[in-house]
Amino acid sequence: MSKKIQLGTKILSANEEYAQQNSKLLRDKGKYCLNMISSPGSGKTTILTRTITDLRDRLAIGVIEGDIQTQLDAERIRATRAPAVQINTNGSCHLSAAQVSSALAQIPLDGIDLVIVENVGNLVCPSAFELGEDGKVVVLSVAEGDDKPAKYPAIFSKSKVLLINKIDLLPSGAIDFDIDKVKADARRLNKNIEIFCVSAKTAEGMDGWYEWLIKAVSRSG
Amino acid sequence: MSKKIQLGTKILSANEEYAQQNSKLLRDKGKYCLNMISSPGSGKTTILTRTITDLRDRLAIGVIEGDIQTQLDAERIRATRAPAVQINTNGSCHLSAAQVSSALAQIPLDGIDLVIVENVGNLVCPSAFELGEDGKVVVLSVAEGDDKPAKYPAIFSKSKVLLINKIDLLPSGAIDFDIDKVKADARRLNKNIEIFCVSAKTAEGMDGWYEWLIKAVSRSG
Repeated sequence: MSKKIQLGTKILSANEEYAQQNSKLLRDKGKYCLNMISSPGSGKTTILTRTITDLRDRLAIGVIEGDIQTQLDAERIRATRAPAVQINTNGSCHLSAAQVSSALAQIPLDGIDLVIVENVGNLVCPSAFELGEDGKVVVLSVAEGDDKPAKYPAIFSKSKVLLINKIDLLPSGAIDFDIDKVKADARRLNKNIEIFCVSAKTAEGMDGWYEWLIKAVSRSG
Repeated sequence: MSKKIQLGTKILSANEEYAQQNSKLLRDKGKYCLNMISSPGSGKTTILTRTITDLRDRLAIGVIEGDIQTQLDAERIRATRAPAVQINTNGSCHLSAAQVSSALAQIPLDGIDLVIVENVGNLVCPSAFELGEDGKVVVLSVAEGDDKPAKYPAIFSKSKVLLINKIDLLPSGAIDFDIDKVKADARRLNKNIEIFCVSAKTAEGMDGWYEWLIKAVSRSG
């Protein structure tokens, strides 16, 4: 007699258990947690370093960095003097809740208000793995094109916030990117998504994101 | 008695079998096949539409389009009058050799010299799944940053060609991208990799890529 084994379900459940533990730990300690997801090179780390620096007097942020290889991103975060734990997935295309669990044990949680997990650069796989976060933030750079919500709907459906980054590249006219189309497509997938158009390089538009962040953290405390 | 089941190995082997069938079919028909891989929005489809158009009199190209959702990319290819088959993976983060096998059955192989498979936008997972191709082409847009070979080494290690795209964005000075560093990092991972700096938008640098492509196809015939 052959038996069908539900492999996919089993693997997700193991992740789900760790995610629930992470969520309970963060709730018990009163810490807010975001899971930041995007393609490689959309500017997640630059958004984080500017956010940490600009909000230094209002919000203590700790970062869990997910990368396949290298400590480069954690080093960039530590240069802001914020605590950062680097996870190297050694080939895996997303962070697992188990990896985040061990990183949470290494980060000085008592000294921070907000944990931001910077996931592996990948617009697809990370959206399927809950880490125990309070919400997801998807980052899309204008250089990636305005068809991305239509082509990669899952992450736009599941995110609390969409940051449209690198808007400083638009005035030159070298990039065709219809912001209104992206906003409409993202809201069709997710009517509650908050959208901020920003340049982490020049700081344009970052204020709206900061206000959202401060409100979200204060509501959770 | 407990037994360890080698799940990963088993799944890769099933893919490997289809990949070998695809490779044999392509070899028997004398067709060259490339597997194009990059992050979302690096410009794969624009590279393809310009390549198809510019080489129209020298090379007949057919395209297999992989996307999670939508027919958008196949429609862009068909606008050049080249044959295109769209595969929608419905959530999966890479093309499988089985999906390419069924697409090869739908594409008019006898009328074309070269099949280019445009994989799902993802710099990680597609590198682990052979499709039966003769070689991989990795595309990196300058907007994604010059740390990508270090952070995502697998695909740079395995590719025959690296296309550094969107170089038209560099003269404005808005983007920090050190081409020499990317070339050195890529060659450290893969000493034989061919590197072309191109703009699929303005056509700058495309000639070198075209020459490589024509030579590769003629050697295989």
